[in-house]
Amino acid sequence: MSMKREKISVIGAGFTGATTAFLLAQKELGNVVLVDIPEAENPTKGKALDMWEAAPVQGFDSHVMGTSNYEDTKESDIVIITAGVARKPGMSRDDLVQINQKVMKSVSTQIKEHSPNAIILVLTNPVDAMTYTVFKETGFPKERVIGQSGVLDTARFCAFVAEELNVSVKDIRGFVLGGHGDTMVPLIRYSYAGGIPLEKLIAADRLQAIVDRTRVGGGEIVNLLGNGSAYYAPAASLVEMAEAIIKDQKRILPSIAYLEGEYGYEGIYLGVPTLLGANGIEKIYELDLTKEEKSALDASAESVREVMSVLI
Amino acid sequence: MSMKREKISVIGAGFTGATTAFLLAQKELGNVVLVDIPEAENPTKGKALDMWEAAPVQGFDSHVMGTSNYEDTKESDIVIITAGVARKPGMSRDDLVQINQKVMKSVSTQIKEHSPNAIILVLTNPVDAMTYTVFKETGFPKERVIGQSGVLDTARFCAFVAEELNVSVKDIRGFVLGGHGDTMVPLIRYSYAGGIPLEKLIAADRLQAIVDRTRVGGGEIVNLLGNGSAYYAPAASLVEMAEAIIKDQKRILPSIAYLEGEYGYEGIYLGVPTLLGANGIEKIYELDLTKEEKSALDASAESVREVMSVLI
Amino acid sequence: MSMKREKISVIGAGFTGATTAFLLAQKELGNVVLVDIPEAENPTKGKALDMWEAAPVQGFDSHVMGTSNYEDTKESDIVIITAGVARKPGMSRDDLVQINQKVMKSVSTQIKEHSPNAIILVLTNPVDAMTYTVFKETGFPKERVIGQSGVLDTARFCAFVAEELNVSVKDIRGFVLGGHGDTMVPLIRYSYAGGIPLEKLIAADRLQAIVDRTRVGGGEIVNLLGNGSAYYAPAASLVEMAEAIIKDQKRILPSIAYLEGEYGYEGIYLGVPTLLGANGIEKIYELDLTKEEKSALDASAESVREVMSVLI
Amino acid sequence: MSMKREKISVIGAGFTGATTAFLLAQKELGNVVLVDIPEAENPTKGKALDMWEAAPVQGFDSHVMGTSNYEDTKESDIVIITAGVARKPGMSRDDLVQINQKVMKSVSTQIKEHSPNAIILVLTNPVDAMTYTVFKETGFPKERVIGQSGVLDTARFCAFVAEELNVSVKDIRGFVLGGHGDTMVPLIRYSYAGGIPLEKLIAADRLQAIVDRTRVGGGEIVNLLGNGSAYYAPAASLVEMAEAIIKDQKRILPSIAYLEGEYGYEGIYLGVPTLLGANGIEKIYELDLTKEEKSALDASAESVREVMSVLI
Repeated sequence: MSMKREKISVIGAGFTGATTAFLLAQKELGNVVLVDIPEAENPTKGKALDMWEAAPVQGFDSHVMGTSNYEDTKESDIVIITAGVARKPGMSRDDLVQINQKVMKSVSTQIKEHSPNAIILVLTNPVDAMTYTVFKETGFPKERVIGQSGVLDTARFCAFVAEELNVSVKDIRGFVLGGHGDTMVPLIRYSYAGGIPLEKLIAADRLQAIVDRTRVGGGEIVNLLGNGSAYYAPAASLVEMAEAIIKDQKRILPSIAYLEGEYGYEGIYLGVPTLLGANGIEKIYELDLTKEEKSALDASAESVREVMSVLI
Repeated sequence: MSMKREKISVIGAGFTGATTAFLLAQKELGNVVLVDIPEAENPTKGKALDMWEAAPVQGFDSHVMGTSNYEDTKESDIVIITAGVARKPGMSRDDLVQINQKVMKSVSTQIKEHSPNAIILVLTNPVDAMTYTVFKETGFPKERVIGQSGVLDTARFCAFVAEELNVSVKDIRGFVLGGHGDTMVPLIRYSYAGGIPLEKLIAADRLQAIVDRTRVGGGEIVNLLGNGSAYYAPAASLVEMAEAIIKDQKRILPSIAYLEGEYGYEGIYLGVPTLLGANGIEKIYELDLTKEEKSALDASAESVREVMSVLI
Repeated sequence: MSMKREKISVIGAGFTGATTAFLLAQKELGNVVLVDIPEAENPTKGKALDMWEAAPVQGFDSHVMGTSNYEDTKESDIVIITAGVARKPGMSRDDLVQINQKVMKSVSTQIKEHSPNAIILVLTNPVDAMTYTVFKETGFPKERVIGQSGVLDTARFCAFVAEELNVSVKDIRGFVLGGHGDTMVPLIRYSYAGGIPLEKLIAADRLQAIVDRTRVGGGEIVNLLGNGSAYYAPAASLVEMAEAIIKDQKRILPSIAYLEGEYGYEGIYLGVPTLLGANGIEKIYELDLTKEEKSALDASAESVREVMSVLI
Repeated sequence: MSMKREKISVIGAGFTGATTAFLLAQKELGNVVLVDIPEAENPTKGKALDMWEAAPVQGFDSHVMGTSNYEDTKESDIVIITAGVARKPGMSRDDLVQINQKVMKSVSTQIKEHSPNAIILVLTNPVDAMTYTVFKETGFPKERVIGQSGVLDTARFCAFVAEELNVSVKDIRGFVLGGHGDTMVPLIRYSYAGGIPLEKLIAADRLQAIVDRTRVGGGEIVNLLGNGSAYYAPAASLVEMAEAIIKDQKRILPSIAYLEGEYGYEGIYLGVPTLLGANGIEKIYELDLTKEEKSALDASAESVREVMSVLI
């Protein structure tokens, strides 16, 4: 029983990985190890050093290091996986899945060896299948292998609502189930501003427009950037989940969780409301769904299974 | 007398500009307008939107918008200039100066027109000459045109010392005068850990090595990244200066300030200790220097004049 | 257009007033003037000095001063009223009302004279009638005279729910209308944990017990303390409202607002959901109520009118 | 290796103890147990409950409980002792020492039994002798029994300097050795504003006046309050030390540490600069002192020994 700083490893030092590392350090959630492949070792070290040089000004004591050596991740409390490729023009979805699956396998082997007790958060797309891959490859208990998508989808939804109503983001609450993006199942009846159901505050067509925009929220950023994808909001989402775990906050947040019967699904990873604490996913909340919601969630699950069928 | 959010415009939406915008929003220092040229309008909008989508998760109410239209910067309280090009292989220093001078002129015209009462912070290199250019082009009083270099140099120095001693960054204090990087004049005798002069804690050669490393701190990151330069620590430095001004904190921070006789220099911008508050630079602290320090500062001033001589 | 620190005066330097002053300073929301009567000038100065001596350690730059001279409150942006007496054994309710009414009159005269543009937050009990008194005495527009009760009632409700469910307080949202304490009208159907209606998570009788406990939440603390009443949560509630106004956050928070037809009431102050921003109450949200809710709110309004009838 | 919240017990639920508990919770440093004697159990529970009810508004997840049962402190990581009586008119110093020594003995027995691995911070006066008592009674290693006085003395000094110079408290650094209050040994030459030695910024007589005021800083508050002593700054000081330990920050802070030869003293607790981290006092910094400083420190040590001679 000696106090210590937590150790958090972030795998993948691209924009999202780097931003995640920085936000973790800012909150003094622990020392951060930013990891990338040997070919990217120098830029990884450069980003980590740049962050560390911001510490005296931002006033945080978390150390950030860059490395390509998994030895440096030894005994991490949390490992966050952002590694993998993005889909490029001409690349089939199946190719994407199989390339990233290979990355997940390699990363999983390293985590299993160096941090057998870590809790893992996965961001790499397609996130449901990639989280499943990490779950299988590490053999970790399901509560310690968690995917991120709902926190980000909800954040986008809330940002759009806050702008629509011109009210504080602090008072908006959204709710999504199911897969990331297209197959996301928003529960509008569980979405509020200042506690007031959004349906009372926003006309139905405007609300539908916000939902539609949220579904393609990732694509909207991709189109604007022209070259690359979102990283601020994805990184912030990962950090919120990591903070809930590190501080044992018992937050109710949507996670990509492994289902064994919940909501009627067996053996797949799907976005559901969960309780996040020191043990990872400490509970899955099962909600009564309307027929429409259940059927949308079925479609989402079906889509996950399809992607999973491509795994080799 | 009505409360309002401050308005902060960040000119240049590259890595440093974008990171600056994000850190400003995080601290709820005001609404942020991120500006770049029309050709970069979409990526600028994309970055700003991505930041705004992080707001619900990070819990900040500052709005961030991206634009290429200076109308949107109207009546900014603070304008931060990060625009300009970096020196590329084969580009002479004089070419760099003249290209960025042109950028400063164009930006200054816009600021003068749309935000005549703003306080301006300049990061673009070579920062002393660029701050001077903005001062001349806007015709703003000297206390409202300020360059950044010392906060960053000090931050790097402190980060290296904290690592050397394995103590908290919160307890390290460095002190630099003069120009950015090479011609930086560190005042070791005014540098401490926990109030204890560093000379008592670190062997002379180790301390010298840290000073030397600080001098080339920017280059170290450039070399590691391979493609690009530091942005986390520079952005954090700009934000610390902006916060001091916005909250009228009366911070004692090193600034690139316009000298009219201070330290024996006339009509140049040079790094000196200043008091930053609601009026910008509210005071310049003149310190007694040793012969060595004065002569190093002379060299620094000389180097600034040389660059200024290239201005057209 | 020069940046400045806001100025916030807190009238009444008892436990709640002092704690409010400290929490305001901690958040660097502005410089704080803590005011009490001449007889209490020294203790007021002592508390303010003690707070200011905590500033270097807690790292806040807001200054705190103690005084009995309203000159020192000149041009406050926000004035928070915590002054007044608490009901003592043997004191009739009518006596309490009239004593505190006298205090409100005296304070209002001072505010009107020294800070004619301030936004006023009232905590003194009975808060509905006291807010009304300040509204009448200052002649300020209704959006600038606001009472606190719902933020506190909601906070207590949320704290009890968080404990019941063992989940983060960050994910609990409660909703109350009407008067403080006994006549509070909780809208359970607008109360959630992680977006999930509480009715789905907590058995009806347990939920009712939590509502009942919330109603007498102030009394529970009074009974435990034996000598005095709650101050941490009341102070935090005032500070949340002040922050929403100072930072123009557009928060949706319950306020004691002056009604002119809203919810069918005319000319009384009553707890309703409001939008708080730089202009004070910027909007009152009118919700459809069930018959039971409306009748409970009627009772609450009736109770306010009864107290108002005692005003002289 | 499972993440968990730290557990911090605060012994003594008076103003300082209660404020300490609240500040610890605000910073989410761990769950807090506030302990007082059985006769004060209800007020202790009342204060803790009031704090917990502030959690939803202030947004912290640390739980606060009040108790008189040491079972509830079981396996605390940190124990902070604020219990004891203050000197009252007519009470001799020796009486004070012996009364509080009895309190320390009783508290030590409880800590030893329930939290054998805790790090202990002592505030009770006379703090040097009381820390010594706890050290002896618990038999804990010296690095885990630490007294507070220098952080508070320094904070007061810095607050006065910030006011004198009208600069940010963030840029002031003071330095004291030796005992609390009267026998405090300020090292002016190690005290700075923005890194600039104070002697360059403040006239000698003004600086001396500030030192003199700091020496009697506790008394100044006592005189103003009329009934009671300071608690905001003392609590903030304890929390800064606790945070350094809990987050393993490696802060350089003045502590009352057990000396075994350092500075030439043997077997006494005295205020010296220390490194605070997860193991408690991880290092004592020995500085070269001037003749005057050494002789003032000798006087301070002598004064500690005198008080220790009264221990029974």
